[in-house]
Amino acid sequence: GEIFDKEIYQDNSIPGVVTGLAWTSVGGEILFVEASLSKGKGKLTLSGQLGDVMKESAMTALSYLKTKSDKLGIDYRVFDHYDLHIHVPAGAVPKDGPSAGITMLTAMASAFTQRKVKAKLAMTGEITLRGKVMPVGGIKEKILAAKRAGIKEIILCKNNQRDIEEIDTEYIKGLNFHFVDKVEEVLALALLKTKVDEPMQFTFPKEHGKEA
Amino acid sequence: GEIFDKEIYQDNSIPGVVTGLAWTSVGGEILFVEASLSKGKGKLTLSGQLGDVMKESAMTALSYLKTKSDKLGIDYRVFDHYDLHIHVPAGAVPKDGPSAGITMLTAMASAFTQRKVKAKLAMTGEITLRGKVMPVGGIKEKILAAKRAGIKEIILCKNNQRDIEEIDTEYIKGLNFHFVDKVEEVLALALLKTKVDEPMQFTFPKEHGKEA
Amino acid sequence: GEIFDKEIYQDNSIPGVVTGLAWTSVGGEILFVEASLSKGKGKLTLSGQLGDVMKESAMTALSYLKTKSDKLGIDYRVFDHYDLHIHVPAGAVPKDGPSAGITMLTAMASAFTQRKVKAKLAMTGEITLRGKVMPVGGIKEKILAAKRAGIKEIILCKNNQRDIEEIDTEYIKGLNFHFVDKVEEVLALALLKTKVDEPMQFTFPKEHGKEA
Amino acid sequence: GEIFDKEIYQDNSIPGVVTGLAWTSVGGEILFVEASLSKGKGKLTLSGQLGDVMKESAMTALSYLKTKSDKLGIDYRVFDHYDLHIHVPAGAVPKDGPSAGITMLTAMASAFTQRKVKAKLAMTGEITLRGKVMPVGGIKEKILAAKRAGIKEIILCKNNQRDIEEIDTEYIKGLNFHFVDKVEEVLALALLKTKVDEPMQFTFPKEHGKEA
Amino acid sequence: GEIFDKEIYQDNSIPGVVTGLAWTSVGGEILFVEASLSKGKGKLTLSGQLGDVMKESAMTALSYLKTKSDKLGIDYRVFDHYDLHIHVPAGAVPKDGPSAGITMLTAMASAFTQRKVKAKLAMTGEITLRGKVMPVGGIKEKILAAKRAGIKEIILCKNNQRDIEEIDTEYIKGLNFHFVDKVEEVLALALLKTKVDEPMQFTFPKEHGKEA
Amino acid sequence: GEIFDKEIYQDNSIPGVVTGLAWTSVGGEILFVEASLSKGKGKLTLSGQLGDVMKESAMTALSYLKTKSDKLGIDYRVFDHYDLHIHVPAGAVPKDGPSAGITMLTAMASAFTQRKVKAKLAMTGEITLRGKVMPVGGIKEKILAAKRAGIKEIILCKNNQRDIEEIDTEYIKGLNFHFVDKVEEVLALALLKTKVDEPMQFTFPKEHGKEA
Ligand SMILES: [Ca+2]
Ligand SMILES: [Ca+2]
Ligand SMILES: [Ca+2]
Ligand SMILES: [Ca+2]
Ligand SMILES: [Ca+2]
Ligand SMILES: [Ca+2]
Ligand SMILES: [Ca+2]
Ligand SMILES: [Ca+2]
Ligand SMILES: [Ca+2]
Ligand SMILES: [Ca+2]
Ligand SMILES: [Ca+2]
Ligand SMILES: [Ca+2]
Repeated sequence: GEIFDKEIYQDNSIPGVVTGLAWTSVGGEILFVEASLSKGKGKLTLSGQLGDVMKESAMTALSYLKTKSDKLGIDYRVFDHYDLHIHVPAGAVPKDGPSAGITMLTAMASAFTQRKVKAKLAMTGEITLRGKVMPVGGIKEKILAAKRAGIKEIILCKNNQRDIEEIDTEYIKGLNFHFVDKVEEVLALALLKTKVDEPMQFTFPKEHGKEA
Repeated sequence: GEIFDKEIYQDNSIPGVVTGLAWTSVGGEILFVEASLSKGKGKLTLSGQLGDVMKESAMTALSYLKTKSDKLGIDYRVFDHYDLHIHVPAGAVPKDGPSAGITMLTAMASAFTQRKVKAKLAMTGEITLRGKVMPVGGIKEKILAAKRAGIKEIILCKNNQRDIEEIDTEYIKGLNFHFVDKVEEVLALALLKTKVDEPMQFTFPKEHGKEA
Repeated sequence: GEIFDKEIYQDNSIPGVVTGLAWTSVGGEILFVEASLSKGKGKLTLSGQLGDVMKESAMTALSYLKTKSDKLGIDYRVFDHYDLHIHVPAGAVPKDGPSAGITMLTAMASAFTQRKVKAKLAMTGEITLRGKVMPVGGIKEKILAAKRAGIKEIILCKNNQRDIEEIDTEYIKGLNFHFVDKVEEVLALALLKTKVDEPMQFTFPKEHGKEA
Repeated sequence: GEIFDKEIYQDNSIPGVVTGLAWTSVGGEILFVEASLSKGKGKLTLSGQLGDVMKESAMTALSYLKTKSDKLGIDYRVFDHYDLHIHVPAGAVPKDGPSAGITMLTAMASAFTQRKVKAKLAMTGEITLRGKVMPVGGIKEKILAAKRAGIKEIILCKNNQRDIEEIDTEYIKGLNFHFVDKVEEVLALALLKTKVDEPMQFTFPKEHGKEA
Repeated sequence: GEIFDKEIYQDNSIPGVVTGLAWTSVGGEILFVEASLSKGKGKLTLSGQLGDVMKESAMTALSYLKTKSDKLGIDYRVFDHYDLHIHVPAGAVPKDGPSAGITMLTAMASAFTQRKVKAKLAMTGEITLRGKVMPVGGIKEKILAAKRAGIKEIILCKNNQRDIEEIDTEYIKGLNFHFVDKVEEVLALALLKTKVDEPMQFTFPKEHGKEA
Repeated sequence: GEIFDKEIYQDNSIPGVVTGLAWTSVGGEILFVEASLSKGKGKLTLSGQLGDVMKESAMTALSYLKTKSDKLGIDYRVFDHYDLHIHVPAGAVPKDGPSAGITMLTAMASAFTQRKVKAKLAMTGEITLRGKVMPVGGIKEKILAAKRAGIKEIILCKNNQRDIEEIDTEYIKGLNFHFVDKVEEVLALALLKTKVDEPMQFTFPKEHGKEA
């Protein structure tokens, strides 16, 4: 009956890795969204047997980051001169749905900024293109899985607060919840100001044209 | 039985977001069409589990705007040097049909002009490539959903006026209707003269060739 | 039972819009083929839920116009530096078959030349790549629909003349028929010498190479 | 039961049009392969509801002509700077099989050389990439259809000679047969030395590089 | 029950044509793999209704030749400035499986080097990317077909030697077998040192960059 | 019942060839992952009837190597100016699943560095994008197949150590196991410091731009 292995939280030393929460027919699980960059031409690669909805979430997250690059302190040339790969282990397990939206967006933002992700943090929530965070299902099962995996802080949509209030308090003891409306709040909570050790140094070809 | 969450109207501070009206087997709903631009090469990305007909509506809307860019005061270079993403939440809900045509077109026009969308306005109607607005179905249910969501003004095709006349007046009290024939009328009604706060500043690479 | 709305003829003020005749299980209908141009790189976009055969008709029409551009007075650079979009409303109604061939070709020719289309004219007929016009089916139903919609002149293939001769004369009173063999005849009949009001002004990048 | 109209032979004034022979469940038919060129980048477009095998025949014919361009007196730049469209009416009739190989190859060769195709000539035969002509089926039915359509000369593979010998001589009176092994023989028989009236004048961009 | 015609061996005057052995439900057959080059950009075209496995064999053969171009005396620029087409007649007969691997590789090598293929030679065997030859099935039927077609020499994988030893010697009288492990052995046996008559003269655009 | 031939370990003289372990319905097998490079533009070709999950593993392996190229001593220009082909014989046997992840990654790394692969070594394990090695199934059957094939050393994920402990020691006598967590450990174990004989000499076009 096991679909994902029983994962436990791992350290936050690597940029672009963010802990999400999945809900399967046999209960909640944590999963890791992995984002990595390599020199290229702006190609987006998605792997981990992601379904259509989840692929669209990734595309939406990337568009959001591009539109907001100035505010987020991302050098726009990274989008043009690096390829982005998003992988969600385990590689053979089909995954779908919009609830990894904020997790994928945060993983991408960490990769593009090389900022560290807060330790022992997990999150689940749909994103929209204008940066709204929307509620998702399976909250109780996801929360139990997060606690079991050693998570201490959880980011959810404000509209999921009612789901938390229905859980017996003993089950959520020691968990710190953040209820948010907007993607900006997610990034402010999840990304530390400090960069990871040995951050990637982006280099760009010399531009030939000038802006008019 | 719920397909879309029961959405309520939201503010008009963000460019490229326009309220549409959907008709499902369980009644009417409002939906938000989100359009955003990021530096690129003129690519169109569509997400939100849109069906073939709805994707073609988006392509038709974009072609219309390109053909009419001069009249609409859009610098044509934006089409070549920015990518356009259209997303329609909720991300996991399949959507199809031509009735979001004017909504998608207005969202795109707001993104390309950075003009504010009129507050508390919703719309539904098919577009054609030459800028005609065509009638759509499910009017009664859509109107009730709009009122429930706090909408005050609604744009419809002239050929849908008969559908409004068949609704009990008490249900539509407080709603202001605009019946239109042409896309120009939709844009004149929906787009304010003022730009959004902090409008996006478009930049372009220096052109090398000259026009002959 | 209605598939297309009961359309009526509309004015000929817009370039690239030509009235065709469709035949469905519930009778004849008129339809509008819309062709529009926008600055681009020669891409062809087709929308309106067109089937394979109809898409191939559009491709054949475009190839014919390219091959004959000199005779038709079309600056070849338009094919390389503008995108062409063909849309056939209603957007949600699947359409197929070769009988819109001459209609699509005429719509494209009007868009490329900005010449006005003759008023109150409709047409139906298959095209081949060498410019032959071929007969199509459903003539009686199409003619009745054309008359109902206010059409005064109709272009058909010579091989469809027998179909007209079998219709009671009272049904076709007031209709003027043109039976043709070749695409050149269609264009000579359908395109006026005068350009539309405010014709599109084509501009081209300066060419760098010379012809050898 | 009719699949193709009962076509009759037409004149040979247009380059790129060659008469082929088809075999359907209801008998033989003639068909016209139409090849046309327009300025472009070497794209091949195929239309007429052609199946996979027939599309591969077209690709094989084109590769053969490219490899043999020197011997055939074709300026190689035509392959790079013109697009080739092959259409086989009627547009709505699905067609497949390898037997139009020599017909498509001859149509292309006529288009690329602008040489006239011999009058009242039809042909049927598979080609291979090295220029071999291979036998095809349905010979008797095809021959009867050719005669009915006014054809006077027919090109067939040598291995189809036995099929002709089994037909009553009265049915083939007045028909002149050419049995061939190689594509070169087909072209020698089918293409006249004279060019069509008003042949297309190919123009090419000035080349920048030199050959080493 | 006939699938391939009963082919007989043909001459070796044309570069890029190599005789393979196929195994069908009705016995063995010989087949011809045809490889041809034409000026282009390194595109690979495959025709003859080849299945996935056979297409992958062709891709593997091409990669092998590219990697080993220095040893094989192939000017690498041919891969970049010529297109390669592989066709396997008969065009309408679906073919699949890995056993044409060495045949396709030898045909390509002959085309790229313009070296003559040894007369009256046939071969069957799978290739791997590192140049290993692997055994294939249907050996007895293939050998009988080869003999019937006039073949005198046959190349097989060493692991297929046991299959030959099980055939009655009278059936294989007059056949000369070569059992090989590696692709290099195949090419050494199959390609003559002499070039074909009138070999193709490769020309290349002048290179602009230098190698660093 | 045989799916793969009963392969035996082969020498390590060729770069880019690594021994993996497969698990089929009829037992374990060894397989060879072959990676080869040829001058090109950074294209990835996969062959050997690989399923979706296995293709994604290859893409993940390649992204990992690109991101870590500095640490691994790979000149990044190889990714841009060479094409990579991965083939897994036997060509007709469908293969899928994530367990060849570390094998494909090691084969690629050997090709890109031209370093020799350790002799008589086999491996099985899933990779993630951040370089984690994950456990896989069928360990007992795979180990028996490895021993039968002459393998002496085996790399597995640490989480597969329990599977080894459950195997009777007599079956694994003479096998040396390495249990790892990270891709770095795999590469450190599998790639020798020495290059293969006659390593490929990478050449690159002269760069025109400078890095800013
Ligand atoms: Ca797991
Ligand atoms: Ca789906
Ligand atoms: Ca909602
Ligand atoms: Ca559809
Ligand atoms: Ca209508
Ligand atoms: Ca179809
Ligand atoms: Ca016909
Ligand atoms: Ca097929
Ligand atoms: Ca044959
Ligand atoms: Ca297959
Ligand atoms: Ca094997
Ligand atoms: Ca799959």
